[in-house]
Amino acid sequence: MKVLQGGLENVPGYTFSAIQCGIRYKDRLDYSIIISDRPCVAAGTFTTNKIFAAPIKLCRERIDNPIQAILVNSTNANACTGDEGYTTACALTADIASRLSAAESSILMSSTGIIGRQLPLEKMKEAHEELLASKSAEMGKLFPEAIMTTDTFPKSVSISFTTSKGEYVMAGTAKGSGMIAPDMATLLAYVITDAPMGKTDLDTIFKRIITKSLNSITIDGDMSTNDTAIILSPQSESPLTEDADIQKFEEALERILIRLSKMLVSDGEGATKFVNVTVTGALSNEDAQQTAKTIAESALVKTAFFGMDPNWGRIAMAAGNSGVEMREESLCISFEGITLLEKGTPVDFDNDKLVELLSQKEFTVLVDLGLGKGSATMMTSDLSYDYIKINAEYST
Amino acid sequence: MKVLQGGLENVPGYTFSAIQCGIRYKDRLDYSIIISDRPCVAAGTFTTNKIFAAPIKLCRERIDNPIQAILVNSTNANACTGDEGYTTACALTADIASRLSAAESSILMSSTGIIGRQLPLEKMKEAHEELLASKSAEMGKLFPEAIMTTDTFPKSVSISFTTSKGEYVMAGTAKGSGMIAPDMATLLAYVITDAPMGKTDLDTIFKRIITKSLNSITIDGDMSTNDTAIILSPQSESPLTEDADIQKFEEALERILIRLSKMLVSDGEGATKFVNVTVTGALSNEDAQQTAKTIAESALVKTAFFGMDPNWGRIAMAAGNSGVEMREESLCISFEGITLLEKGTPVDFDNDKLVELLSQKEFTVLVDLGLGKGSATMMTSDLSYDYIKINAEYST
Repeated sequence: MKVLQGGLENVPGYTFSAIQCGIRYKDRLDYSIIISDRPCVAAGTFTTNKIFAAPIKLCRERIDNPIQAILVNSTNANACTGDEGYTTACALTADIASRLSAAESSILMSSTGIIGRQLPLEKMKEAHEELLASKSAEMGKLFPEAIMTTDTFPKSVSISFTTSKGEYVMAGTAKGSGMIAPDMATLLAYVITDAPMGKTDLDTIFKRIITKSLNSITIDGDMSTNDTAIILSPQSESPLTEDADIQKFEEALERILIRLSKMLVSDGEGATKFVNVTVTGALSNEDAQQTAKTIAESALVKTAFFGMDPNWGRIAMAAGNSGVEMREESLCISFEGITLLEKGTPVDFDNDKLVELLSQKEFTVLVDLGLGKGSATMMTSDLSYDYIKINAEYST
Repeated sequence: MKVLQGGLENVPGYTFSAIQCGIRYKDRLDYSIIISDRPCVAAGTFTTNKIFAAPIKLCRERIDNPIQAILVNSTNANACTGDEGYTTACALTADIASRLSAAESSILMSSTGIIGRQLPLEKMKEAHEELLASKSAEMGKLFPEAIMTTDTFPKSVSISFTTSKGEYVMAGTAKGSGMIAPDMATLLAYVITDAPMGKTDLDTIFKRIITKSLNSITIDGDMSTNDTAIILSPQSESPLTEDADIQKFEEALERILIRLSKMLVSDGEGATKFVNVTVTGALSNEDAQQTAKTIAESALVKTAFFGMDPNWGRIAMAAGNSGVEMREESLCISFEGITLLEKGTPVDFDNDKLVELLSQKEFTVLVDLGLGKGSATMMTSDLSYDYIKINAEYST
């Protein structure tokens, strides 16, 4: 497995486009597409928010079909837009399908941006000619920028890996940057590959890796109406089936999605720290994840990270609030080898050493519940003045 | 029912004291007590955090006993202090009991402050003589200050009410100010009255009013290891039993705890706004409360309040994240009569009027799920730069 320079443009069999359509603002890349030369097998995970956007409904209906393209717009989420919003998404994908001579059901769509406004259907349809005319492999370099909202840098990563059937490339891109940003941003992530995988294997692998990566990061605990992650792999009569090959595929996917997850947290709104919150000794992995999430989302824990404050009491407090089985007398808390609480009893520690650790850009908090074998890690950021600035000083 | 000037000092049959013991800092009121002339019936609610402080354990064991006094220290939470912490709390209450010629089991204790440090047992015991020597009704004016941590003002309220057995007084005090502040603050609340109430009625009424008041406020969603609310009412062979009298008692309690709740939110760390989040049309009251809580605790909603941003999309997003039954096509969102979303469809509104409303110090957001008859209100604050400042610029 080898990390490549560049991103989406490295994957054979795909073209891309990104244009300034003027959906909400002028002079901004806001409309883009990923097109596969061949029909693809797809897997996807979508927001669990009960209020979900029109394109989420569309993707849920189509994700098990052969997929040919993913259309994406930024600056408008097409959420809380009722039947009209859904009809618009269908009309846009139908027009793209007809221009690509593909089935309407083979086009997916994502939107990110402000909630509660209709997309400018006619303007966007009129832009389709330009959108498709400019498609190329090279445009894969621009696609990550076109899907951004408050992200401060485009995010992509690509990897090559070797199987018994030869060498393949996999690439991914994602945008954050708060779970929800001023523009009602969203977590969008796309992975493409030329390695053929069967539908059942793709679903299983994608779900497993998403749990470890995109579902293990949290910035502000809010979940958007539009969160979407999709992977495309070309349909084939002879997909990868050998265990070793499937494992290689999964390793490549894990590498890509973990890397993108770390980029998303590092680019979290106002983030100055990257913190791994690892919980071990829980009665189950689910308990561990719930505890790690509660700690990682506690405003008091996150402001302490920002303030470089070794206030482990806040971590104990947050852990105790997670609702999972826990006992003070078995609770241990440490920061990368510096133990602060040992089985419920505070331990003397070298404060200078700890402050030095906390002043680093990245560190790990370890919470051992001492009850079982469940473990999980959540990746998070601190909570800084800039989070408030970005999110408050914005007028709809 | 009449709101009185002053607070605890108005209630006949109680004395108070508050001294500078030097538990963690010099020149700060940090040790205080409420003493009843007669044994009292007590009711209490305590943190549901799995990691709870030693005094919580002590209170849970004793709350159903006849109660004579409540001992309170600030600046040290006596949490995560293991067996030693519990033994210390017992030793302190035993010493007070012996000085008051009362049963050890009749003394309750609360602590608030930093987690993970042992209380200075000897120093505190030595202070008991001074603590009890200075007790008086007048010291009820100082007690609310002695329990503060980052609160910016002491909080108390008193009310007189008339029953078939005559006139009684009820008074309450509380401290916040984040659910957890830099010093690991805590929500502590005490209500005292000279109106005699039976144990069963007191338990029922207190639980019901706590749900509507202290359990309906949220500042940062964190719950402390030490949260405590206690009410004392004198033991009597002829308590209030007539329905009309019990109702008067309950009304007085509601008035006091709602008033204290509002004070706590207004004094929330860095708060500049007081926002009522009312949810109606839920399938149950529990669903309504869960939805109101999720909205009231969303960092994105709270920063929008601070920024006076009518970004109702964030409210829809947060509602959808609450996990309760919800349908976009029946969702309505309004700000005091200004409708923004009507059955899932955005409504044109007067932006100037809305901005004017949001620039007020207090306003109400109404979210109607349109599914049933469940309703609830949460009181919350906005999320401002000062929250970060207070919580980050503190070194343990």
